[in-house]
Amino acid sequence: MPARALNIPKTIEWVNGRVRLINQLKLPQKLEYIETDRYERVAEAIKKMEIRGAPAIGVAAAFALALAAVKSNAKTYGELLEDLRRAADALRKTRPTAKNLFWAIDRILKKAEELSGRDVNEVREGVLNEALRIAKEDEEANRKIGEYGERFIEDGDVILTICNAGSLATYYYGTALAPIYKAWEDGKKISVIALETRPYLQGARLTAFELKQAGIPVKIATDNAVGFILSRGMVNKAFVGADRITLTGHVVNKIGTYTLAVLAKKHGVPLYVCAPTSTIDPQTPIEKVVIEERPAEEVLFIGGYRIAPEGVGAIYYAFDITPPELVTAIITEKGVAEPPFNKSLPRLLGA
Amino acid sequence: MPARALNIPKTIEWVNGRVRLINQLKLPQKLEYIETDRYERVAEAIKKMEIRGAPAIGVAAAFALALAAVKSNAKTYGELLEDLRRAADALRKTRPTAKNLFWAIDRILKKAEELSGRDVNEVREGVLNEALRIAKEDEEANRKIGEYGERFIEDGDVILTICNAGSLATYYYGTALAPIYKAWEDGKKISVIALETRPYLQGARLTAFELKQAGIPVKIATDNAVGFILSRGMVNKAFVGADRITLTGHVVNKIGTYTLAVLAKKHGVPLYVCAPTSTIDPQTPIEKVVIEERPAEEVLFIGGYRIAPEGVGAIYYAFDITPPELVTAIITEKGVAEPPFNKSLPRLLGA
Repeated sequence: MPARALNIPKTIEWVNGRVRLINQLKLPQKLEYIETDRYERVAEAIKKMEIRGAPAIGVAAAFALALAAVKSNAKTYGELLEDLRRAADALRKTRPTAKNLFWAIDRILKKAEELSGRDVNEVREGVLNEALRIAKEDEEANRKIGEYGERFIEDGDVILTICNAGSLATYYYGTALAPIYKAWEDGKKISVIALETRPYLQGARLTAFELKQAGIPVKIATDNAVGFILSRGMVNKAFVGADRITLTGHVVNKIGTYTLAVLAKKHGVPLYVCAPTSTIDPQTPIEKVVIEERPAEEVLFIGGYRIAPEGVGAIYYAFDITPPELVTAIITEKGVAEPPFNKSLPRLLGA
Repeated sequence: MPARALNIPKTIEWVNGRVRLINQLKLPQKLEYIETDRYERVAEAIKKMEIRGAPAIGVAAAFALALAAVKSNAKTYGELLEDLRRAADALRKTRPTAKNLFWAIDRILKKAEELSGRDVNEVREGVLNEALRIAKEDEEANRKIGEYGERFIEDGDVILTICNAGSLATYYYGTALAPIYKAWEDGKKISVIALETRPYLQGARLTAFELKQAGIPVKIATDNAVGFILSRGMVNKAFVGADRITLTGHVVNKIGTYTLAVLAKKHGVPLYVCAPTSTIDPQTPIEKVVIEERPAEEVLFIGGYRIAPEGVGAIYYAFDITPPELVTAIITEKGVAEPPFNKSLPRLLGA
């Protein structure tokens, strides 16, 4: 039994036939929920980024399809499947590049197809249970990451992180923050420095929010302070998430991770990358990974405030690439991979 | 004669017995001037940071004392000196840690004291001329930095910079931006990437503004993109300013400079530090340099928008330290110092 109970609000929940999710656009000012029994409203929440983070979006899509099934007036299996497919089409359009979104939708549709010809209520129940299973599996994987990752955290550690690979990005418990939550539950004395993570400020807005909710001491810092913080020995571990990991151990993650990684290496601070094995891409070589460029406007405005003169553009790559020689270990729900990653990662995936 | 004429607005000017200065708090939204014949209004502008940047503040204080002298009703030398000293006291309270402010005030008072017993109008004129000389010397030093620094800039260069060590921080022409302006005047094809420089966003707000006014192509980038930008070969030179340089060649400058310097070195991009020799501190060893910590609120709010939850603090060191092994050259109005700096800097100061 953990020494302390973790007390952070659930990103998204299925409550009495309705979906309830935190409106992340209102954070950190207000903890405000959206509650609905309409799948269209969940689709809107994904599109407007009221919910974000790859695993959280997957769960939201699955729950949206469960709503579509439960609320459908279909009398026959065929009619129900048609309603589900219509909802799936609408959901696919919300964030067309989100891998987890498509994965969750396909999994729910496959389940419905497996129940071909069954009674409509049985299909409704099957779809809902599959959605709940997707959510539960996400939390279980994250708790495993927490257990494997906690071994690297000692009493008194001050941990550096960037972006939000926390509970808010998942169904519950987070990825990069999972080892921190596990250490906290086990009574270890730790604290966190969260880089604010421009342009969206996920570190300041979301990571600081959920750590504070959990009761874990946290301070934010501007991204450009990362070198000074590391050079002064103000942190002794770094934990980050990942959007994609190649079999060579190259880590694609939020812009700023590479800068952090170079400085961590220079100052002898270990860097742990936490992600479910679904993040590991066994096909694509790193040279083929395209780094998404996003609109300059997302850099040029902060909370409606224009920070640069009109007519001046901005460079905005959403991610960067951290090479394997800067990574101490990759922590997944199946275990920990250590260098050389081109050996340990295939072994982990095979396990 | 330069191939192109530089066309950037003057930070501060003496115009027909009045002081006219750009209200930098309104940038980049509006180019708005403050014009006054009252030294109290200039003091207020320094205090409210309507004007900032060490050399610019020095000139503003000198012009404020000139206003005090010109507008004084003193009939005798003694009365005039009393009025000047009262104005000096008020000015000293505006930014109590600004070195250039005190230096400029002391220089004007010394001038007035040298004219002891002269006719009041002669003293008024002497004070005004000394203030104009301080301004002129600043521009001359900056143009020298530009000439020495331009040698390192080639046609086609893309230059990385941080913060605003530009014309807006000086009377005219800037320090880190001086070689860029000189290269531009001489017709070289160059462009600039300005790191936005949180928390005050001097890069986005001020550097982008003045480069755009000059017609030099500029884009901004978030500070955390510095590693990615350098790793992709998007820039081939870096120019930064300095708040203090020790005789060992340690450079104290805006937070983020050290992070930039480590990444520049890693990717083989030369880093040039531009500053007048008055920035070189021949006394203090680097271990004794105290890095100013500023209020967390300055990180926690952007344009009135709170970016982190209430109750969460922030780390804000205003400066960091770049060690000499990361610096390619230090460019001053007296010439260029190259490694080893502990030999070249004393030589330069002696010159």
